[in-house]
Parts: sequence; structure tokens; C-alpha cells
Amino acid sequence: MERLRRTLERIPELDEEAMREARARQDRLTKPQGSLGVLEEISVRMAGIFGEPRPRPARKAVIVMAADHGVTEEGVSLYPPEVTAQMVLNFLSGGAAINVLARHAGAEVRVVDIGVGSRVEGEGLIASKVRPGTSNMALGPAMSREEAVAALEVGIEVAEAEIERGVRFLAAGDMGIGNTTAASAITACLSGLDPREVTGRGTGLDDRALEHKVEVIRRALEVNRPDPSDPLDVLSKVGGLEIAGIAGVMLAAAAARCPVLVDGFISGAGALIAAGLQPRAVDYMFASHLSVERGHRVILERLGLRPFIHADMRLGEGTGAALAFFVVDAALKILDEMATFEEAGVSGPE
Amino acid sequence: MERLRRTLERIPELDEEAMREARARQDRLTKPQGSLGVLEEISVRMAGIFGEPRPRPARKAVIVMAADHGVTEEGVSLYPPEVTAQMVLNFLSGGAAINVLARHAGAEVRVVDIGVGSRVEGEGLIASKVRPGTSNMALGPAMSREEAVAALEVGIEVAEAEIERGVRFLAAGDMGIGNTTAASAITACLSGLDPREVTGRGTGLDDRALEHKVEVIRRALEVNRPDPSDPLDVLSKVGGLEIAGIAGVMLAAAAARCPVLVDGFISGAGALIAAGLQPRAVDYMFASHLSVERGHRVILERLGLRPFIHADMRLGEGTGAALAFFVVDAALKILDEMATFEEAGVSGPE
Repeated sequence: MERLRRTLERIPELDEEAMREARARQDRLTKPQGSLGVLEEISVRMAGIFGEPRPRPARKAVIVMAADHGVTEEGVSLYPPEVTAQMVLNFLSGGAAINVLARHAGAEVRVVDIGVGSRVEGEGLIASKVRPGTSNMALGPAMSREEAVAALEVGIEVAEAEIERGVRFLAAGDMGIGNTTAASAITACLSGLDPREVTGRGTGLDDRALEHKVEVIRRALEVNRPDPSDPLDVLSKVGGLEIAGIAGVMLAAAAARCPVLVDGFISGAGALIAAGLQPRAVDYMFASHLSVERGHRVILERLGLRPFIHADMRLGEGTGAALAFFVVDAALKILDEMATFEEAGVSGPE
Repeated sequence: MERLRRTLERIPELDEEAMREARARQDRLTKPQGSLGVLEEISVRMAGIFGEPRPRPARKAVIVMAADHGVTEEGVSLYPPEVTAQMVLNFLSGGAAINVLARHAGAEVRVVDIGVGSRVEGEGLIASKVRPGTSNMALGPAMSREEAVAALEVGIEVAEAEIERGVRFLAAGDMGIGNTTAASAITACLSGLDPREVTGRGTGLDDRALEHKVEVIRRALEVNRPDPSDPLDVLSKVGGLEIAGIAGVMLAAAAARCPVLVDGFISGAGALIAAGLQPRAVDYMFASHLSVERGHRVILERLGLRPFIHADMRLGEGTGAALAFFVVDAALKILDEMATFEEAGVSGPE
């Protein structure tokens, strides 16, 4: 709890002066003001995060948090829970989508066993299991409050180690069969919306299975009565260990002035928990893509973050975030490398 | 006319067999089927374009077509027409947004004077001026039908030269003060929509200036009565030289089985003309971003192309397309580099 408390207290304000300078430079570059839209906004906020008026592309890593979910007993996913561990091995051997996309983006991948149900080992795995999967939230709390804090602190520790190694741009992804059920429960609870409004097909449920998933979430919320004003209560009762770890990564990133990309729905649920614990953390987050999972839009709207990749993705792992690294770096290079109207001898508006 | 005719005749069908193989491989990769959304679709169509079941990232270039517009006499832009030539020099010296984004994407930039109003020279410029700017379309045809064909053929020639040099992935961008007026007129004519529905603020018009721009477009359509069933008639009467050049690039790309990215509204207008001349050309096009210019959405819907970057951009030059190269390459690497369920020992759905 101490590590979490210290992290929450340490999150600084953005550097307003650096942002003013970045904005002023953007407005002198050879293009109509505002014509690069989101790229301009990203570059200005990055200036505020790094405390630098012309920030440069930074070393990158995707942290993939893996954990299992007791609620899979209820038949909420098409895939068996052992896929979580199998996919962890796939991440370690470089064959998963996130490996391909992170390589393409020039980012490293860090895989964390924060709560995989079975024993899993492999070179490069960060072994920080808090417990082997959550309990079935349809019957009682997914985990204890202490376990939720421990998982948050694993996330903080892993992110701090990355930053220590020189990483200055993070993304937080997930692996966990059943985890859209937890993300939907968190989103329903924190948004006040009906579970139906924030529940999607996950890995590909049909209409009937989707209906059942909504019912399971409804039951989990009734059984546990999580308190929406207490993010740790929500996280422990209807959340997941990987979601807690992701929230921890986001808080540690913010505390170290390190930007962090939100991936899809699960990563978004982690962001929502992080924002509940310390709203200032959102200043350090960037949305990446808009997932097919309908709850994702709700989360991003609540956070005030705007996704710029619309590609009907719904895989998780950090795959949408990995695509976004390129766009954020593009925004930084625009600010840093473009000529101004004076330098290029171009006339301004009449 | 001969070059254009030959190009239109040469555009092949996609390779269905390569697409089937690519689709089959996508479905064996370690992710739920369809969970990478647009990336999966892109990879399959790229297989059909290249005629290869596992296509690899290819050498890239952005062709920027620059030309002036007589209709600027009517006060439809915030910027003076001399900015077109000034920006051409900025492209040649590497200080414009497209230079920065193309470098970031690993693409070369080719700048073509296809109709700049004034004399412009510089190292690397492809000097293929058809005429020094169009005539004011609010008073009569922007150019003759022969000039429109000549500009289309410049586009074909430039693209063929790039392909000859080994480029296998093109993007078509624009520079031309006043060219959103021409793009709106083309879009209104070919879609049958009222000019108001497809006219935006360009470089940043206020409400009153936007109203005036709509009126100018209305007048141009009334004076010229372009025939929507004849793309060359529309292009010559209310189009632009750079729009013709872009259409030519797209047709030549399709004829050579080379994918081509559509950038924003102007590039989209060129795509619409190309599609009007030979509908099969669309099979070789990919949308990139969705522009703030409202007519852009209309164009992409008509073409059946789906933009995957939503970043409120409205600069042109090929800037949105430059960002999309990375996403298309990501799609190819997913198909080529990911492990299958068998290879990774991951269980499928139950």
C-alpha cells in the first residue's frame, strides 16, 4: 500500500510553459494552423509531459500483463482458460501479434505473469504472480483488497524497472481469457450504465452467449455490490489481476513523466481504475485505437481521451497501442523537423 | 489519349487464389478470427494485389502533384495562390509536413509541377506543367478536355517511372491553393449531392467565407453543366490539374498491380475520377485517414473504402497517406510473421 500511496502522491502537473512553447512553434510551421489535428494536440501534450518544448521520440516498451479469471467457470468465453498460459509462451517466443507489431514499432515487449492460473515459466518472463487467477466474481469477490493493491504495486514496480532501464514511452496490454467480462463489470459499475451497454462479444460470442455474459456480469455486480466511489473496491470485487497491473503501470508512468498508451477495452479498464485513484494520471495517457468492444468507447469518453485508429480491432495484448507509437512519434517529428513560414519563405493567410 | 486508354485496359483483376490462401493463413494465426479487423482485410487484399499469399512490405513513394486554380480569383481560400509555388520549394528542401512524415514512414517524396501558376524550379522537381494553373471555373471550364487527358497522362507517366525504379507502394498527395473548391465541385457533381453537403472550410474559412465558397461552386456547376456520366467532362470543367495527375497515378498503379493510398479530400477526388474511368482501379486503392473536409467521407463511401486513421487532419500533401504506410506494413507483417495455433501449441475455441 505504501508504494501505491507514494506513486499517487508523486504524479506531477504537466509543464504548462513547455506546452505554450510547443503550441507557439506548431502555429509557425508551414501549414494552416490546426491542419494536422490530433497530431498537433499530441505533440503539445507530449511537450507538457516531458517538460520539453521540442520533445523527441523516446525508447519504447509494451508491458503485457497476463492473468486468469475465475469467472470463466460461467462459460463467458469461447476459449478455454489454459490459452492464457499458452499465449504467454507464445509472447515469450515472439510469435504473437503483439511481438510482430512491437517489433514493427521499434518497441520491446515485457511479459508479466501477474496471475496466470497455471504454472508458467520461460526466458524473459517477469514472474510476479499475486495469485493463480481470480475467484469467480459471479459468486463473490474476484480477489481481496490486499491482493488488488499487491497487483497494482506489481504494475508500478514493472513500469519503474522499465523507466530505470531508459524506457520513456510505455504501452500497457493484456492477456487473460475471460477478461472482457471483468472489464465490462468495472465499466458498468464506474459509469453507472447497464451491463448490456458496455458488454461485447469478446473473442467472438454469438447472440445467446452474449446474453448469458451480460447476465453473469449483472449477477457479479449484485452479489458483490462494489462501491463506485472506491476504485479499489471495484477492482478487487469485479476486476482482474492484469487490470490492476495495467492500472499500476499507468500510475507509475505518470509519476515518472512517462507517456503511456491505452490499448483496447481491458487496458482502458485499467486506465479507468488508475484515473479513479488519481485523476491527474490521465494527463499522461494517450488513447490509441477504438475497439469493437462497445464498453471501450464509454471508457475513453469518460477519460476524455480520443482514439485515432479505427480499425475494428479487438485482440488486446497492446496491439492497438503498438500501432499508435508510430503516430505519436510522427507528431513529435512534425513539431521538431518542419520548417516555419519564415524559414521556408512561405506566405501566411491574407 | 492513347496512353490513358492503354492504362485503363491493362488494369487486372485481383488474384483470388492468393487472397484465399492469405485468408486461410490469417484464420490459423494465434488470435481469434477477425480480431485484427481492418489489418486482416488489408493483408488479404494486398495478397490479391501482389498476387502473393504472403506479401512483404515494399518500397514506397509519395507523389505530390502541385497546381494552381483560377477560381482563387473568387476569394475561396485564405491563402494567396503564390503559396502553391512556395510550398513546392518547401517540399524540395524537405521542410514540409509530407517530407517529415514520409521520412518517418520510410517513403520517398516526388514533387510534380503539373500546373503551378508561376515558374518554379528546383533540384528534384519533376517539371511536367500542362498549363500554368486552371481557368476560373466560376466563369467557364477550368481546362479543355485535351488538357485534362494530358494531366492524367502526366500522372500515369510519373507513376510508371516510380514503378520502373522499383517502387511497389504509392501514395498520391496534392498541393494547390483553391483545390478544395475543385474537389467539392467534382464530388457534388458525381454524387448528386448539393454543394453545401460536400464543401468544407479548406485551410480555415469562417462561416461567411464558407457560404461564399458554396455559392462559387454552385455557379461553377451551373455555368459548366458537367456531365456526371463522363468523368473527363467533370474533371476538365470543374477539376484541377493536380486532381487529374492524382487520378493518373492511381490508374497507373492499378495497371501495374501496385497498391496506392488515397490521402485526403483532393486525393479522394482524384480517386473518384479514376474510379469513374475504370471501376476496377478501386481494388488497388486503400483509404488512409478521414479528413475534416466533409466531402471526403462522401467520396470514400462511394468508393467503398474505409479510412482507419481518424485524426482531424486537413492538410493534404499526402500526409494522411504517409501515416497509413505503417499500418499497411503492420498488416503484412502480421500475416507473414505471426505463429499459427499449431506452431505455438495454443488451443483454439472450444
